Amino acid sequence: MSDSNKLNLAPVAGIRLATACAGIKYADRKDLVVIELADGTATAGVFTQNAFCAAPIQVAKAHLQKASPKYLVINTGNANAGTGEQGLFDAKATCQAIAEQTGCQPEEVLPFSTGVIGVNLPMNIIKTGIVSACNKFSEQGWPDAAEGILTTDTVAKGISNTFKVKGKPITVTGIAKGSGMIRPDMATMLAYIATDAEVSTEALQACLKNAANHSFNRITVDGDTSTNDACMLMATGKSGVAIKAGSAEYQNLSEAIQDVCVELARAMVKDGEGATKLINIQVEQGATQQECLDVAYTVAHSPLVKTAFFASDPNWGRILAAVGRAGVSNLNLNAIEVYLDDVCIVEGGGRSPSYTEEQGQAVMDKSEITITIKLARGTASETVWTCDFSYDYVRINAEYRT
Amino acid sequence: MSDSNKLNLAPVAGIRLATACAGIKYADRKDLVVIELADGTATAGVFTQNAFCAAPIQVAKAHLQKASPKYLVINTGNANAGTGEQGLFDAKATCQAIAEQTGCQPEEVLPFSTGVIGVNLPMNIIKTGIVSACNKFSEQGWPDAAEGILTTDTVAKGISNTFKVKGKPITVTGIAKGSGMIRPDMATMLAYIATDAEVSTEALQACLKNAANHSFNRITVDGDTSTNDACMLMATGKSGVAIKAGSAEYQNLSEAIQDVCVELARAMVKDGEGATKLINIQVEQGATQQECLDVAYTVAHSPLVKTAFFASDPNWGRILAAVGRAGVSNLNLNAIEVYLDDVCIVEGGGRSPSYTEEQGQAVMDKSEITITIKLARGTASETVWTCDFSYDYVRINAEYRT
Repeated sequence: MSDSNKLNLAPVAGIRLATACAGIKYADRKDLVVIELADGTATAGVFTQNAFCAAPIQVAKAHLQKASPKYLVINTGNANAGTGEQGLFDAKATCQAIAEQTGCQPEEVLPFSTGVIGVNLPMNIIKTGIVSACNKFSEQGWPDAAEGILTTDTVAKGISNTFKVKGKPITVTGIAKGSGMIRPDMATMLAYIATDAEVSTEALQACLKNAANHSFNRITVDGDTSTNDACMLMATGKSGVAIKAGSAEYQNLSEAIQDVCVELARAMVKDGEGATKLINIQVEQGATQQECLDVAYTVAHSPLVKTAFFASDPNWGRILAAVGRAGVSNLNLNAIEVYLDDVCIVEGGGRSPSYTEEQGQAVMDKSEITITIKLARGTASETVWTCDFSYDYVRINAEYRT
Repeated sequence: MSDSNKLNLAPVAGIRLATACAGIKYADRKDLVVIELADGTATAGVFTQNAFCAAPIQVAKAHLQKASPKYLVINTGNANAGTGEQGLFDAKATCQAIAEQTGCQPEEVLPFSTGVIGVNLPMNIIKTGIVSACNKFSEQGWPDAAEGILTTDTVAKGISNTFKVKGKPITVTGIAKGSGMIRPDMATMLAYIATDAEVSTEALQACLKNAANHSFNRITVDGDTSTNDACMLMATGKSGVAIKAGSAEYQNLSEAIQDVCVELARAMVKDGEGATKLINIQVEQGATQQECLDVAYTVAHSPLVKTAFFASDPNWGRILAAVGRAGVSNLNLNAIEVYLDDVCIVEGGGRSPSYTEEQGQAVMDKSEITITIKLARGTASETVWTCDFSYDYVRINAEYRT
């Protein structure tokens, strides 16, 4: 990636990052990132709900219970998932290697991995990479780290956000990766967000859970929940501004963090494997949040809807069929309305009388499109983001291991 | 289709079929089928559970309540779904046209449609096609009818089965279509099965429901339940053999019908849009049937699993990840075993020690593959059939309306 494509990310006092080209899957590719947290940093995390939770995730969860994290280590090119006892041993050995380089305890390290499932970690390569990385920690290391955590992603994803508390600036910076096997359930495949605010771990965890629920947990590329999802939020306190749960400042911080999560989540979908379009699915007037989500995800996962979007074909019948199979009982079909951006395509149980193919085509030719589905049953609403389904999705996933 | 490709289907006494090239979507293509049922024929049907049930399905269900069907009329090229009041009017007008040609009552006609959603039926073309078809009813009409109900299917699907009751032969013949928008829920997109046995409507309905549950309701191409699914079973009684519910003969008939349904269902998946492989997913040792189905469908719908099969890549990590996100609580990961045909690929929470890539590759190169997943939780089991996910699926569905 040339320097002109580097992300512009604000440093967060108390966070230093180091990135190495270890050579795990490819030579000369950034594939190992270590993040150093200043003493006193509070850390919150949400992890995959896939029952086949990868070894590093199991170790990270256990270490988070035991100690305050001082280092996060992330490798790409190998997920260390489906690797049984050896996988757990290797994840712990990775933490041990960091401890040896930095003088911390192994329990103060959280390991993360992403890449192919079912292959043992190449530990010699990982250890050499760790030695190399631990020589170059820098507060300016965010853009390199954003590149160092990528797999099939085509662009690095990161964003910074700032707001003021009593005149003092607070920074929130986050990076993420994720392109395929993306239908997060509690968190998504590797996102790291940090702020220099001072916040308790409990308040930070609540903040992260809420933000993830309205961002990473509302996107889907292919409906496949990864075995390695993790989203970490760190608060270093180095701004000197303490923020208490429930305060107005906490509300500001929560919003700043949620904004960062939403931007990262949308960037993930936009860069979904083979994606050519970002599709916002808004379900409104539902009786419950759950039925809004059921409808939104059924539309978002429909291969027929996704291929129609790839073809820029306003094939609203496929959207209607997906709504109809979402499992919502007693739908009043005649009251449902469906819009592409602001064009009403369905009302009265069929095509809107005012709709023309030209109107639908004009929306379909855009690279970002909003489908709005009004259920006429209540006041609940939900938004889910997805992408289209292209030849390239098939190519990328048919060729992934070869 | 050349004559050498014609299906070899046994006539069923009491059933006559007629097929016309009406020109609904393409010129010179068989697209309209009328099936005539002899007086005294018992008819059973199962229909789509999609809430956006197409107009012809609504009319067929209503007519089935009112009268004993004498004619079934099926058009392809247009689904008459999402067409509101006009759609209901057109479906009834189609029945009226049959009534005018044959002298029956409109309520004695069941209409079926398949094709694009959201476009009104071209009634003049339909009516002209009906006039043409009603001149050529024949007991030999099954093979033409099997072709006349196709849309994106690449081969006609039909099968005959016979068995004897006290020395007298009973015939069961069925035809079906279905290639995309296939994840039947109660029945599938258009299947018609007939027997010359004499069976009560209630016994026939029970027989069909059971057969559909173990065949059409166990297949998926893309997870998209159609708005127009219907499966009809007719018993003419013309063999002179009466079969009572609960008898040994009824068991024989049920098995013969289920065999026909399974063959038609498997033929549908094999001819799934873009499919290059038929995949049998067997989930065994489950605590309940439902969890077996949840696991089987999660694997069957995973785009990552489906693209790996397209690439003939034994990427068992993707199967494991899908099992893990199927929502089964308290899975004992170390006890689960996964097989590709008879090759054990996963045990002890990771790759089987005995497994080699060569073994996996040998299975993957076949055109029909069985994945067996042993959950080690009980004695329930279920089988689901699906296909792989190829460039051609995207092409077919990106180009469908253009």
